[in-house]
Amino acid sequence: MTERPPKERGKKQSADGEFRPVSARKVPRFAGVSTFLRVPTHDDPGDVDVMICGAPFDGGTTFRPGARFGPRAVRAASALSRGYNPSADLDLFDHLRCADGGDIACVPMSIERSLAAIQARVAQIAEAKALPVLVGGDHTITLGALRALAKQHGPLGLIHFDAHSDTFGPAWDVDIHHGTVFRNALTEGLLRPQDVIQIGIRGPFTSANDLDFARKHGLRIVMIDEIKRTPDAVAALIGAFGARGKCYVSFDMDGVDPAYAPGTGTPVPGGMTSYEALFLLRQLVGASIVGADVVEISPDHDPSGNTALLAATVLTEILSAVAKSRRAT
Amino acid sequence: MTERPPKERGKKQSADGEFRPVSARKVPRFAGVSTFLRVPTHDDPGDVDVMICGAPFDGGTTFRPGARFGPRAVRAASALSRGYNPSADLDLFDHLRCADGGDIACVPMSIERSLAAIQARVAQIAEAKALPVLVGGDHTITLGALRALAKQHGPLGLIHFDAHSDTFGPAWDVDIHHGTVFRNALTEGLLRPQDVIQIGIRGPFTSANDLDFARKHGLRIVMIDEIKRTPDAVAALIGAFGARGKCYVSFDMDGVDPAYAPGTGTPVPGGMTSYEALFLLRQLVGASIVGADVVEISPDHDPSGNTALLAATVLTEILSAVAKSRRAT
Amino acid sequence: MTERPPKERGKKQSADGEFRPVSARKVPRFAGVSTFLRVPTHDDPGDVDVMICGAPFDGGTTFRPGARFGPRAVRAASALSRGYNPSADLDLFDHLRCADGGDIACVPMSIERSLAAIQARVAQIAEAKALPVLVGGDHTITLGALRALAKQHGPLGLIHFDAHSDTFGPAWDVDIHHGTVFRNALTEGLLRPQDVIQIGIRGPFTSANDLDFARKHGLRIVMIDEIKRTPDAVAALIGAFGARGKCYVSFDMDGVDPAYAPGTGTPVPGGMTSYEALFLLRQLVGASIVGADVVEISPDHDPSGNTALLAATVLTEILSAVAKSRRAT
Amino acid sequence: MTERPPKERGKKQSADGEFRPVSARKVPRFAGVSTFLRVPTHDDPGDVDVMICGAPFDGGTTFRPGARFGPRAVRAASALSRGYNPSADLDLFDHLRCADGGDIACVPMSIERSLAAIQARVAQIAEAKALPVLVGGDHTITLGALRALAKQHGPLGLIHFDAHSDTFGPAWDVDIHHGTVFRNALTEGLLRPQDVIQIGIRGPFTSANDLDFARKHGLRIVMIDEIKRTPDAVAALIGAFGARGKCYVSFDMDGVDPAYAPGTGTPVPGGMTSYEALFLLRQLVGASIVGADVVEISPDHDPSGNTALLAATVLTEILSAVAKSRRAT
Amino acid sequence: MTERPPKERGKKQSADGEFRPVSARKVPRFAGVSTFLRVPTHDDPGDVDVMICGAPFDGGTTFRPGARFGPRAVRAASALSRGYNPSADLDLFDHLRCADGGDIACVPMSIERSLAAIQARVAQIAEAKALPVLVGGDHTITLGALRALAKQHGPLGLIHFDAHSDTFGPAWDVDIHHGTVFRNALTEGLLRPQDVIQIGIRGPFTSANDLDFARKHGLRIVMIDEIKRTPDAVAALIGAFGARGKCYVSFDMDGVDPAYAPGTGTPVPGGMTSYEALFLLRQLVGASIVGADVVEISPDHDPSGNTALLAATVLTEILSAVAKSRRAT
Amino acid sequence: MTERPPKERGKKQSADGEFRPVSARKVPRFAGVSTFLRVPTHDDPGDVDVMICGAPFDGGTTFRPGARFGPRAVRAASALSRGYNPSADLDLFDHLRCADGGDIACVPMSIERSLAAIQARVAQIAEAKALPVLVGGDHTITLGALRALAKQHGPLGLIHFDAHSDTFGPAWDVDIHHGTVFRNALTEGLLRPQDVIQIGIRGPFTSANDLDFARKHGLRIVMIDEIKRTPDAVAALIGAFGARGKCYVSFDMDGVDPAYAPGTGTPVPGGMTSYEALFLLRQLVGASIVGADVVEISPDHDPSGNTALLAATVLTEILSAVAKSRRAT
Repeated sequence: MTERPPKERGKKQSADGEFRPVSARKVPRFAGVSTFLRVPTHDDPGDVDVMICGAPFDGGTTFRPGARFGPRAVRAASALSRGYNPSADLDLFDHLRCADGGDIACVPMSIERSLAAIQARVAQIAEAKALPVLVGGDHTITLGALRALAKQHGPLGLIHFDAHSDTFGPAWDVDIHHGTVFRNALTEGLLRPQDVIQIGIRGPFTSANDLDFARKHGLRIVMIDEIKRTPDAVAALIGAFGARGKCYVSFDMDGVDPAYAPGTGTPVPGGMTSYEALFLLRQLVGASIVGADVVEISPDHDPSGNTALLAATVLTEILSAVAKSRRAT
Repeated sequence: MTERPPKERGKKQSADGEFRPVSARKVPRFAGVSTFLRVPTHDDPGDVDVMICGAPFDGGTTFRPGARFGPRAVRAASALSRGYNPSADLDLFDHLRCADGGDIACVPMSIERSLAAIQARVAQIAEAKALPVLVGGDHTITLGALRALAKQHGPLGLIHFDAHSDTFGPAWDVDIHHGTVFRNALTEGLLRPQDVIQIGIRGPFTSANDLDFARKHGLRIVMIDEIKRTPDAVAALIGAFGARGKCYVSFDMDGVDPAYAPGTGTPVPGGMTSYEALFLLRQLVGASIVGADVVEISPDHDPSGNTALLAATVLTEILSAVAKSRRAT
Repeated sequence: MTERPPKERGKKQSADGEFRPVSARKVPRFAGVSTFLRVPTHDDPGDVDVMICGAPFDGGTTFRPGARFGPRAVRAASALSRGYNPSADLDLFDHLRCADGGDIACVPMSIERSLAAIQARVAQIAEAKALPVLVGGDHTITLGALRALAKQHGPLGLIHFDAHSDTFGPAWDVDIHHGTVFRNALTEGLLRPQDVIQIGIRGPFTSANDLDFARKHGLRIVMIDEIKRTPDAVAALIGAFGARGKCYVSFDMDGVDPAYAPGTGTPVPGGMTSYEALFLLRQLVGASIVGADVVEISPDHDPSGNTALLAATVLTEILSAVAKSRRAT
Repeated sequence: MTERPPKERGKKQSADGEFRPVSARKVPRFAGVSTFLRVPTHDDPGDVDVMICGAPFDGGTTFRPGARFGPRAVRAASALSRGYNPSADLDLFDHLRCADGGDIACVPMSIERSLAAIQARVAQIAEAKALPVLVGGDHTITLGALRALAKQHGPLGLIHFDAHSDTFGPAWDVDIHHGTVFRNALTEGLLRPQDVIQIGIRGPFTSANDLDFARKHGLRIVMIDEIKRTPDAVAALIGAFGARGKCYVSFDMDGVDPAYAPGTGTPVPGGMTSYEALFLLRQLVGASIVGADVVEISPDHDPSGNTALLAATVLTEILSAVAKSRRAT
Repeated sequence: MTERPPKERGKKQSADGEFRPVSARKVPRFAGVSTFLRVPTHDDPGDVDVMICGAPFDGGTTFRPGARFGPRAVRAASALSRGYNPSADLDLFDHLRCADGGDIACVPMSIERSLAAIQARVAQIAEAKALPVLVGGDHTITLGALRALAKQHGPLGLIHFDAHSDTFGPAWDVDIHHGTVFRNALTEGLLRPQDVIQIGIRGPFTSANDLDFARKHGLRIVMIDEIKRTPDAVAALIGAFGARGKCYVSFDMDGVDPAYAPGTGTPVPGGMTSYEALFLLRQLVGASIVGADVVEISPDHDPSGNTALLAATVLTEILSAVAKSRRAT
Repeated sequence: MTERPPKERGKKQSADGEFRPVSARKVPRFAGVSTFLRVPTHDDPGDVDVMICGAPFDGGTTFRPGARFGPRAVRAASALSRGYNPSADLDLFDHLRCADGGDIACVPMSIERSLAAIQARVAQIAEAKALPVLVGGDHTITLGALRALAKQHGPLGLIHFDAHSDTFGPAWDVDIHHGTVFRNALTEGLLRPQDVIQIGIRGPFTSANDLDFARKHGLRIVMIDEIKRTPDAVAALIGAFGARGKCYVSFDMDGVDPAYAPGTGTPVPGGMTSYEALFLLRQLVGASIVGADVVEISPDHDPSGNTALLAATVLTEILSAVAKSRRAT
């Protein structure tokens, strides 16, 4: 991101003097007001490199609701988060000033008003040259982010982890819901179809033509079998995104098997293990990530809390890749 | 209901020969497709006295969603339901042919379309001279039922069990949600305010004027203290409804204390015990009930299943009162 | 075991020096192999005043099974048990040498073999002049105990806490199950019907004649309303048992409301509070108790563990009443 | 029912137009009375290709009971089921008219009466030339199905997924329970031993001779290590069943690791992942399947619901293989 | 508190302009970083009337640990909190500027260091003339608060809700733990024994002399029976505190029955209902409260979340009483 | 262990005649007082080959406490344990007389006193020439065992399964806690650093230098990637321990992925599967194991019980390896 003028580090600082996690050797991990990754809350994206916001909206959910409590659960699970990634060999917080930007005020009864609020906040963050990262919420929220970012950056590439391609048709005549967002995004011209990869897709499907839209637009669909049988080839596909322009990363927790992430709205057996997901996320190094999200965390269906903890770890892996990419430049 | 011509009992019967529960001495309670109170599924309200329908809608929920799974949970909990009520000294199924009318197809993203679907189904049932009974779903669904029934019967009385009066103002500019339905109903002229009683109301409230609307319209608010300190006086208030014209019964599970009904969207400590609730429901005998519902059952917050079981028992008590009233006439 | 010399009351002894709980000030309550009330395991009833045995049988359950794990759960919950009862003003362990006699080897597929095993063990304990106390298991197990004790003592009185009278007819042509045991016992002549009291009974019932058998035999049925409205009168009924000969105490956890005891096979809303149950149990002082049980603890339906903890407290109350009665004599 | 004219494959029909799932785009997945795979309930197997019945029996369970609620849980989890299988490239419901035949009335206290009821229902379905598919219930139920089907078809081959070979000896002198059924079946001559494959078996075992019976009869035991180390070879073993005559498929959920299927009676760590199980089930294409079951789903031990969801998916995979095999013929 | 000079309202304000909850009609209750009662976080007690701090310490727990997560759970449950108390007829936030002061950095391995940290923070708050309110944590934390407040105010009165008197002796030679704190406080001269009332105490106890210390010092022990049988007399006892000087309120969640508050370390059946507890707390109006806490919230044992929700409501009731007392002066 | 004189088998026997599990064909697995692996309780290590003791201490936990209940949960889960290991082709109980030695009386408030108690008990067992096996408790307990065993045997090798290397620095100036024990042990000279292998380690870490201590001392760290990509090479590393002198095996449950073992204090996504863990444990055959433990089982975070069940299986695998090694000698 050479086009980005360097921010003046430390110009505006949190109480602890820096936009990094509170030290667990000073304040125990179980203590304190919960924030994403234990970083300070802060409103102004102009002061940071990364602004993580909750998007507590589940009004686009077609089956089990509850993802509106996703941000709260990920904040709590973040208590265990750490910053040094041995595979990347860096502490992401040495390279990225991170803040918790709070939650975007969504309206559970209105998809459009919620998308507008998300779009506005993401646009503000992006315009301040910080990286917007969202914690959902159901997958509908991604459309708000893509609308903001495509307006600023033009059509984006997409690295999308999910059990579903989310390019499906309307349900009950509702055209935008959590299973349609990438059809909506493609139709609105927010994505570069040839630079879209969907990872972890698996059936059974509702009908034979479920993937027709995705295929017609030339999206690269990585079915779960590819991940299980040729993981390194899939890793290479992701790694190749370094040369493919600006892109967005969207991680739907149901890409992972329900054994690892039961707390989600529409679980599908036969998915990735947590190791496979984290391994693939590590291949993001080099990609020009202009926004990211992790969505479909539904705490009421997560008796062990594993889903929220994995979501926090997914956040960390994405940010580690961003940090490593930036260090390299 | 003297205006109602007697139906020919048994004219049209279910496979088992009658619209009553499958005998637990023939089919174990844990077996079989779950229906409300183990009665047969049936579509045509013209064949029955009572049609129980699910209204799986939680799109009006302002806090914890999940009530869309209420009907499913109450059907499952109904496995334990029985028909003979010792306090009424009758088996409700000897007097009421009951069917499970299935679920009304609600659209989680649209309050208005869902209310319209509910209104249509309730109108059809009422026009067939059967008693419509709904299982929610969040409290928003009641507005659909009241719209149908007031059109047929004129403004209704209301016996309303709840922690909240649900006469609050809009939230986030949304005028109809689960906390506004009785304000909406009063504004639309669906209720006779002087014949509205709200039982179990308790604070803390959001603001001092939360009950202003209710008070201005002259609703009778029975705060929880009245129930605790003078239960027989409250019972008498309900018993007096026998002389007050057609009425609707709406039972929000959060009227009961969360110890008894944790599985609800907006629990409030300090409520009724299950015994108090059932005792008060037994006072409904004599009332001209033209519709009823039990709402705000959220199974994801009901680890023991107690809430759904109590909701099924509430259904049984209401129907027992109806049966006893009809036998008396 | 008539050859056995009379026990020297209070002459405390044994491996750990005494048949009383391990001191929690020496060994933390969370530590050690779990036994009932933290008393030592011991095989020979000749050495003790009270022998508590598990009867892990749920093969007589008509709805939710799982009570076979009741003894294990009550042992674990017993970690919190204590011996000094302020209402009785005594430490039961100062007066009763208590042991955990282990579990009776029941066969889940055979009611008759399980009852035979229970009968044999209870007979052995009773013949050794120790008090047999069982932890169930479903209510079927009580029949085994009554068979043993009536053989030794003649027909017994019964103080029975329950939501159901358990005098129902066969289900699916099975004549003995957890809902029939007191009909079986009465038919077999094991009880003195005029000295049977059933406390906490409530509907709805399966049919109007559910209580016919109980009424025909003159059992005293205390419906839940009596407990709620005239608790002292109910207490007096129990207190009067001091003058009514040898009796058995059977406590079915579903006598208590599911809010207090969700972990049971056939919960019925509208029951006793824990306080009401414990208050009534304290009235047992003076009764000639020759055996007791607490049954229908189903840990898989007890997410908070409250049911097992209450069952352990019920045990303690019964034993306190026994201790106080003996001290008085 | 030999008098029944041959069915016209694919000529879709019925009340809701056809014996296929209710469309989720018309009726939300969370709505409606729960049936297996959302197909209609129907009694007469003569009208369909596949009849799925619950067999809610857990009276043969030696450890944790609760599988009697398996059918109910699988019906509920079926809400998420879909019909188009990308690996088979077909929508199973285009090829198979499927109905939910309700539950077989089992008696929890009687293995023999329950087996007789199962045998009768399976025989009726098979005689109507429909495919009987059972949802358990504990593994004992399979014996009832095999008795019916071997009577009609002669001894069968068996493709059996499980942690245990279930060829063990009696427990407590009970000769038929959920750990003995394949010994019983072999002894009764219901299986062709050389065409029996048991997949996922693993220890520790109770004793060294646990597998002696299985080995003596020449069953092909695929230990878990084979699946982990040479999955394609195991796939080939299953694929070879196409040439081995009529066979039965029995899927015990404990074949899968408890991380994926905790809700089962006797879990064994170290098992298959859900992906491995589904991958192996896809190799069934070509086999002459005359009956199938999925058993040992115990909802009380399934806090996330994953086990029931996986069981529903297993059902779908088996039916997809059947559909593909039939299309091919 | 006439001695307290009025603070200048609004002198220093939060982002929303005031130290009161974020409006739920602007920001949904499920959204945003969780704070106690949705009030702003703030460090300086000089700016507010009430400073609520978490004391996440459970190192004094003798049985089930986990109360270190109490503050986090109460913050989350606070999402449902409201300020207008109908019984007091006021909105507490109109009278009290409240802030969330974050958590006090306790060290789980050191009772003394944790008590010192608590004492220091409470002293700082009290010196700033704000009311310190703690959310535990186990009951040990109260000793830290009392040490700070007695130093400033002299020995205090105490209104203590609990199942246990917490005046017990050492365990395993540890002299300060969660069951000893009021013995410690009395020994250290921090309390005025004649102005100590302990409410909700009940057995069974470990030994007959468990209450000896309390009785010797003349504490007023209100056993549970008094609350159940003469609630108005107990209310009067509390109400009389208005004339008894400065006092501290300590609410141990296990004072309430486990049906209402399962999420606690040492539950005791037979306790208060939530209504009884809230009713008694309302009698605090008039008392000179100089500090308060609610302790022993153990979220891992609180499957429904009821305990944390009730704790948040207890906080609100205490603050309402304080607000009403101040308005009166 | 050629230096060890053979014990006289059966010289001192349990009631059942042998130090092996109660037969599940005599006593059902759900029945009886729970002991580790269903072996008898026994105090004197001189009579057995293996003495398994609980070490219910979690006072060294920095995040989620609760491991003090680990021994209780593992005892209960042990109900499913079996002794014949097909991969080792032996029944461990044919070779090892095993007893449950009860729990070591730890003091939750004192790390040093608890370590001293553990050290004393382990020393006593080891001096009696029995193998000490501990069930934790948090990882702190291992230090007590190592202190005892190194005193007897000199510095030990270590085979350590974990997500964390537990060589971290002090937290909050506390030098010994569950994240420091191997640093403490190395500093105290209890281990031979070149013979320490740590298996399953993975990030993210708190800081880049988290592993510095481990690396400086030359510990062999097997990151999770090695296990996933070259499992046979890792197996060989473990297998090589046969030639490396006396060693200790420590298995922290968080080495396994939270999907398999959610019930632990500091879970880390991306870990071993249960199969991988068991496969690696089988490579211990041949090693000179002088002590072992399985730690960090936190039942309150283990809703399915999988963690305790896996811990019991880990115990069995370790003992099978010991048995096979001894048979070989």
